Parts: sequence; C-alpha cells; structure tokens
Amino acid sequence: MRRKSEFGFIADLKWRFRLKRVGDDCAVFSKDEKTDFVITADLLVEDVDFRLNWASAEQIGHKALAVSLSDIAAMGAKPLYALVTLGIPNSLWQTDFVEKFYKGWFKLAKREKVELIGGDISKSAEKFFVDSIVLGEVPKGKAILRSGAKNGDLIFVSGYLGNAALALKILEGKIKKSSMDSKFTKNLLSHQLQPNPETKLGVMIGERQLATAMIDISDGLSSDLWHICQASKVGARIFAEKIPISRKLRSVVNSDHEALELALHGGEDFRLLFTVKPEKAKTLQRFVPKGKKIFCIGEITASKKLELVFANRTEILNPKGFSHF
Amino acid sequence: MRRKSEFGFIADLKWRFRLKRVGDDCAVFSKDEKTDFVITADLLVEDVDFRLNWASAEQIGHKALAVSLSDIAAMGAKPLYALVTLGIPNSLWQTDFVEKFYKGWFKLAKREKVELIGGDISKSAEKFFVDSIVLGEVPKGKAILRSGAKNGDLIFVSGYLGNAALALKILEGKIKKSSMDSKFTKNLLSHQLQPNPETKLGVMIGERQLATAMIDISDGLSSDLWHICQASKVGARIFAEKIPISRKLRSVVNSDHEALELALHGGEDFRLLFTVKPEKAKTLQRFVPKGKKIFCIGEITASKKLELVFANRTEILNPKGFSHF
Repeated sequence: MRRKSEFGFIADLKWRFRLKRVGDDCAVFSKDEKTDFVITADLLVEDVDFRLNWASAEQIGHKALAVSLSDIAAMGAKPLYALVTLGIPNSLWQTDFVEKFYKGWFKLAKREKVELIGGDISKSAEKFFVDSIVLGEVPKGKAILRSGAKNGDLIFVSGYLGNAALALKILEGKIKKSSMDSKFTKNLLSHQLQPNPETKLGVMIGERQLATAMIDISDGLSSDLWHICQASKVGARIFAEKIPISRKLRSVVNSDHEALELALHGGEDFRLLFTVKPEKAKTLQRFVPKGKKIFCIGEITASKKLELVFANRTEILNPKGFSHF
Repeated sequence: MRRKSEFGFIADLKWRFRLKRVGDDCAVFSKDEKTDFVITADLLVEDVDFRLNWASAEQIGHKALAVSLSDIAAMGAKPLYALVTLGIPNSLWQTDFVEKFYKGWFKLAKREKVELIGGDISKSAEKFFVDSIVLGEVPKGKAILRSGAKNGDLIFVSGYLGNAALALKILEGKIKKSSMDSKFTKNLLSHQLQPNPETKLGVMIGERQLATAMIDISDGLSSDLWHICQASKVGARIFAEKIPISRKLRSVVNSDHEALELALHGGEDFRLLFTVKPEKAKTLQRFVPKGKKIFCIGEITASKKLELVFANRTEILNPKGFSHF
C-alpha cells in the first residue's frame, strides 16, 4: 500500500500548480499601499486533534481560535477577522455544546480583539470538527516568512517547551496523575487544552522587523526548526542545555533524557521559534513584552542539517513530530 | 427533545455577539479606498451534501469551489483567492481521490481565475468533507446585500430552476433513469453534480449597480426569496407562469404541479435571484452577458409575505427548502 505524507502532498500540490503563496504559516496578499493581509486555516477534528472527554466545549472553542492566532503571530501580524466552520453530529447539536464552544471562542476573541465575520455550520456524520480561519494584517512587505534565516543568525524560542506534550501524555494515561495535586495538574493540562497564542510578541517582532524567519511550534521544535531550515536552505545547531524546560515538567518525568525528548519533539506548545541577526539580539531583548521570557537556543549554520550539541558530544537531530496521517 | 434550526442558531449568535458582518452571502471588509473584500466559507460533508457513489472526485472538487463562487457572485463581486480545507478518511487518503478532487477544483479555478492560497488537511474519522473559502473584491461600498430590496422592485432569476433538485431525485432513485437516454441524463445530473456559478453576471450587476438586493439560490427559490424579504423588511409577489422551468424538466416529471414544486422549493440551482428598480430593467437586459438569459418573475411588495399568483388565484407561498439539520 502506498504511504503518503501530508507535507509531501502539499509540497507536490504547490509545485504542480505553482502555488506561490502556499507553504508558510499564513498566505500573504495585498491590502493597500501600506499593509498586507495574512490568512490561515486550521482544521481540528474530534479524536484526531482533541477528545470530548478530555477537553470542555469552551476549551475546544478557545483552542480552535488559538491555533490560528498562533499562525498569525508567526507572521509578525496582528489578527483582525475570523471565520468558523463547524461540522456537528446530531447528538451534540441537541445539547448546549455549540453554545459553550462559542463561549470559549468569544472569550479569547474579545481578549485578542478578533471579530467573527463568517463561517458555515453543517451536520457531521459522527465526529465534531472545526475549521478555524483567521485574517490579520502586517505592514507592507514585512510579513516574516520561514525562508529568511541566514547562516550566523541566532535561534530563539518564546517559552518553555514540552509542557503541551507532557499534558497529552497525562491525558492519555501514559503518565499517572495520581502523584500530582489537582491545581498543579490543571495548570499543566491547560498547556494542551487551552494554549495561549503569542500575539503581542509576534506583532512586536513584525513591527520592528527583529526576526529573519519565524514559525510557531505546532508540530514540535525539531520539526518546526527543520521547516525553517528547509525554507531558508540552511542548517541549525542548538544546545541541549539551552532548551527551556520548566521545573514543572522536570518534576513529573523520570529523567533529563525524557524531558529533553518532550521539549525537542513534543508538539502544540504554540511558542514562537525565530531567527535573529546577532546585532539585533539586544534590541530584541529590550522590546520583549513585559512578563514574557525568550530563550536563545542556538544558531543557524550553512550545513543544511540539524545538530544537537551536548556538553561532551554533538548529535545529528532528526526532526520528529506530530504526523497528521 | 429540543429542536433547533441552523438559521435560528446563527441569528441568535449574530444578535448575542453583535456580529454586524454576518448574515449575507459573504462578509464584507475594507481593502483600500476604492475596494472592499468579500469572503465566504461553505462546508460540504459526505452523505449530507454529496455522495461518493453519485459524484466523482473531480465533480466534488468542482462543486466545492462552485458553491463559494456562487456566494461571491451574489455580492456582485469578483473572485480572487481561495482556501481549501479537507478532512480525509484514511481509506480515501490511500487512493488518488484527493488528487482527482484537486483536478476538478483547479479546472474550475483556472477558468474563473481564482488562486489557491491556503487551507488545511487532516485525517477524518469516516467521512470526507471540504470547507471551501473564497475571497473576492467589489468596488467600495458596492457589495450587493440581501437587505436593499424596496417595494415595487422587480424580481429576476438568472436561469431555469428545479433542474438540480430533479437531478437529486434521479440520483436518489425517486425518479427512474431508465426512461431517459444517457446523454440527456448526464446533462441533467450535471446541474446537481457540477453546477456553474454566475460569476460574469454577478460582476456585471455589481459594477453597474443594477440590483438593489441579491442572493444565490442554494436553499431554493421560496427560501432564498424569503431571506431577501426578511433582510429587506418587505414581501414579494411572484407569478407561477413566469417561473422559468426547462423543457428538459417538464419532460421528466408527471405534472405541471410537480415541475412548479421543484422550481419553487428545490435547492442548489446556484442561479442569482435579485431585485431591480423598474427604471433599470432595460439597462439590465442590455448588459446581460452573451448567451445568458434572465427572467423577471415578480415584484417586491410592502406586505411582508410571499404570494404566488396563478391565472385564477393567489396563494400564500411558504418558504420550503433544504434544511441542514
């Protein structure tokens, strides 16, 4: 049987039909002389991207918008409008599930000043699904793509990694919750169930043009860094000890190795991963929004491979992350 | 058990969250000083909106784009960009179904000069589905809404009605195909399986501001006319004998009554339904694109009800059409 990958399929489509605006976190198109629009669509399917017995309807509403806002942030853009398309099985339609979904959606939309302008709803045979579309704007020609990273640029991430993947393991029962108190667990699970997009940081980076390339970490650090490297035709060297791992995460897992694996390959942290010219690193630190920490984890190289540097050795890092099929 | 309708749910959402751009065929938002953007999303779900044993993958690709283009045309706008989101069950992913879907999609997109700029694909549990998003542009402030119809305006439709509904009956086996020759049937079925949007007519009406209100006939003439009436706070009187019904349709059904029912309440013809000031009717006829016929079927009234006029009597027309739940 043939095996095909989502990334391969899209790359093939892009090539066959010469789709010049496909392949980044958002597509960019012209608004007026001073501004470009960016647009993204994200599909979340029950039992693929979320489970109804893990997440509340409000949390699913929140997350559906959050994942698209994260794509907008990854372009250095400001979100403006959204469309929501829902496929609803009859069993849920007859409850207040959809009302609660919108409650969670609108709570985040209000905070992020996003206006709902459209979408569609239809019956779904069995599973609930959401297609989340968000439009944003960015100064003309200033959208930050994946393709601008250059040899010598520094690599930054905008927060701790691996928490969302750890939360997933807890939800899956692969790590037992009984050993942890309830508030602690709830907080940990929120990384997976109710992620917060980096809108402020993204907009600041876009306005001040502080990054040469940017992506949001949805598939996992190794995968998403590799996406930047492929688009920019470069390589990267990151330092194991510099990868930000929370004490929270370390306290739950059994070893440093397990913690590092989660941080390297775990998806859905929705932090920004971006590359910065060394001479701009100081300016960047100065303008980071209050309360936000960013971490320099390595540098771009000319090697066209990913390297992971430990105190006593260097390994080749293979991108591993979430596969949609 | 509670029973809720799609239209009621959306109306409630629009009211609760003051969604001023929701409720027309497309949402309108500003591009630049001279132009507005319009955007629409349409969800098509396997076994709700199409069946894999009725339609080919190419036809589903064609139709997914066509229904959104029809919404763009109904605003008097010109289509520009599209996003396609697909939920794909594994059984189809392992075949060339998706490639064929895009073949049909791109064939229409090329003809209509629409550029694919984004979307998403993910695994679906069981059924294939498509969320089709199209963006178009229209001169500033000139998008034709449902809400502009005035007492005395003439009502036009842009082609024969009921063919798509008849085709559906044939596909459902409610009307036997054996009595018809293959080419005839194929042509008839194409109204349901491969509808063509009225882009040229829509753009002309938008540019020349020849309609006071417009919608595309997706739910059915009676339903969609009622949408215009509700949005415009008016009523309408249409004449049974003026409703355009093809000879093709008449030759298949058993009675004039059956033909009229299909034309009045059958959905998915994707013709334009629009209202025109009487003094503009001549100009309209002059600029109708070559090869296209439009039909005046009645007039807008102040009555806030729908009336259907026969030679010897007038009936109240109850909107009946496709219900999504």
